Amino acid sequence: MHRYNGTEIIPQEDTIATEAPLTIRIDGEEFATLVYTPTDTEDLVAGFLASEGLIRFIDQIESLTLEEERGFAHVKLRNLHQLSQKMVSKRFIGSCCGKSRQFYFHNDARTAKTVRTPLQLTIAQCFHLMNQLQEQSADFKATGGLHNAALCTGSELLLGRADIGRHNALDKIYGYLLRQRVSVRDKVIAFSGRVSSEVVLKVAKIGVGILLSKSAPTDLALRLAHDLGITVVGFIRRDQLTIYTHPERIMECGNLS
Amino acid sequence: MHRYNGTEIIPQEDTIATEAPLTIRIDGEEFATLVYTPTDTEDLVAGFLASEGLIRFIDQIESLTLEEERGFAHVKLRNLHQLSQKMVSKRFIGSCCGKSRQFYFHNDARTAKTVRTPLQLTIAQCFHLMNQLQEQSADFKATGGLHNAALCTGSELLLGRADIGRHNALDKIYGYLLRQRVSVRDKVIAFSGRVSSEVVLKVAKIGVGILLSKSAPTDLALRLAHDLGITVVGFIRRDQLTIYTHPERIMECGNLS
Repeated sequence: MHRYNGTEIIPQEDTIATEAPLTIRIDGEEFATLVYTPTDTEDLVAGFLASEGLIRFIDQIESLTLEEERGFAHVKLRNLHQLSQKMVSKRFIGSCCGKSRQFYFHNDARTAKTVRTPLQLTIAQCFHLMNQLQEQSADFKATGGLHNAALCTGSELLLGRADIGRHNALDKIYGYLLRQRVSVRDKVIAFSGRVSSEVVLKVAKIGVGILLSKSAPTDLALRLAHDLGITVVGFIRRDQLTIYTHPERIMECGNLS
Repeated sequence: MHRYNGTEIIPQEDTIATEAPLTIRIDGEEFATLVYTPTDTEDLVAGFLASEGLIRFIDQIESLTLEEERGFAHVKLRNLHQLSQKMVSKRFIGSCCGKSRQFYFHNDARTAKTVRTPLQLTIAQCFHLMNQLQEQSADFKATGGLHNAALCTGSELLLGRADIGRHNALDKIYGYLLRQRVSVRDKVIAFSGRVSSEVVLKVAKIGVGILLSKSAPTDLALRLAHDLGITVVGFIRRDQLTIYTHPERIMECGNLS
C-alpha cells in the first residue's frame, strides 16, 4: 500500500484487520455464514446460536467441531426446537446494518426477556469502564477496523472481545458466558459501537441490565430498551454522557465499589 | 433522557436516529426484513434486490408498492432467475457485521464483475470529496448514528445517502443508479464506514472503480478489491490518506477537473 503523508506518496506496510468467513452447519445442513475476526470461534458459534434462538443452554450443543482452515463449524444440537429453526429460516434473518430482526419476530419474543437486576452504577464507574474498554482496544488502534465489547462488573472489565462485526463481538461474549456458566446478574456490557435495536435485543437475551456505549442509539433501540428494562448510557466521551433509559440504575454520586 | 455535562445530571431533549423495519415480499412471499433509516425506500429495495443478485436491470421489477406505515414493500419481479433466489435462500445471507456472503457465493460470483474504468483521481480530489461528504452529513452530526455514502464525479458529490446501516446507504445509491439509469463509468463512491468484503462486493456490483473511505479496510476486502479492479483509498483524514489497491488510478499531482 501507499501512504500520502501530507507531502508525498511513500510505500508503507500496515496492519490490516483480518476478516474470514465461517459457515455454521447444524446437523449436516448449512445454517448461516458469518464474516468475522477469527478469534474465540467456539464462543462465537455458541453465542450466535443462542442469539438466533436455537439454543438457550450450552447443554443443547451436543458437539461443536471447527474446521478453521476451510471456515466451517459443524454443530450437532440436542432437542432442537423445530419451531425456532423454522422461524429463523423463514425470515432470512440478518445482522446489523441491513437485514435484521425485530422484537415481534418469534425468536426474539421468545428469548429476549425483560431484565431485572438490582445493579446500579455511579457516573464515575460509567466513565471508568468506558476508559478501560478503550485502553484495552489496542487492536482497534492498530487496524482501525474492529469493534469492541467487554463484560464488566461495576468496577472492572472481566473480558474483552473484538471483531470486525459489532454483533460478533457481543456474540463472542454471549457464548463465553454460556460456555463458562458465568452469572450475568451483576454484570455490565461496555460497547464501542452504535446502539441499534439488534444490539439491545442481544443484551436483553444475554440478560445484562446496563449497556454503556461511546456511540449513539436509535429510536427503535431505545423503545426496546425501555420495554426490556435495559439502562442505555450512550455518548460516553471524556467527562460527558447521556442516560437514555432506566436512569434509576445510574447514580450521580456514590462509592466506587 | 438525562445528560451528565461533567458537573451535574440534567434532563435533555435530543435528536435520535430513526430506525424502522422493512419487510420485502417478492411475488407474495416474504423475502427479507431490513432495519433501515426510512428514506429513499424504493431506491433501497431496488438496490437491495440487485445486490442480492435477484435483478440486474430495473425492468426486471414489474411493480413495487410500499406500505410504509406497516413497513412492507411488495415487489413483483419479471423473469426471476430461479437459481438466484434459490442461492440466496440457501445461504441465509446477511448484511455486515455477521452473517454475510463472500465472493465464492454463487450470486456474488455471477454479479460482481471486474471493474474497468479509465477514471483517475488526484490526491487533492480524494481529500475534496471526503470533505464534501463530511460537510453534507448534517444528520450524522445531529444524531451520531448514521452512515453516509455519496456518489461522486471526480470533482463533486452528486448524491448523498444516509442510513443507520452502512450497507443500506450503498444500496440506496445502487437503487438510485438503476432506477434513474445513470452511468457509473466515471463515478466514485465516498463512504463514511469501514471497508469490509461486503462493501467492496457492493461497489463492484454497482460497477464503480474507486472507493474512498475515512475508515480502514479488512484483509479480505483488500483481496477482493485487488481481484475486482477496485481502487481502495482509506483512512482519509485531514491531509493524509492510504492507497491500498490499484494505485494506478490515483495521481499525486494533476489538474483538478
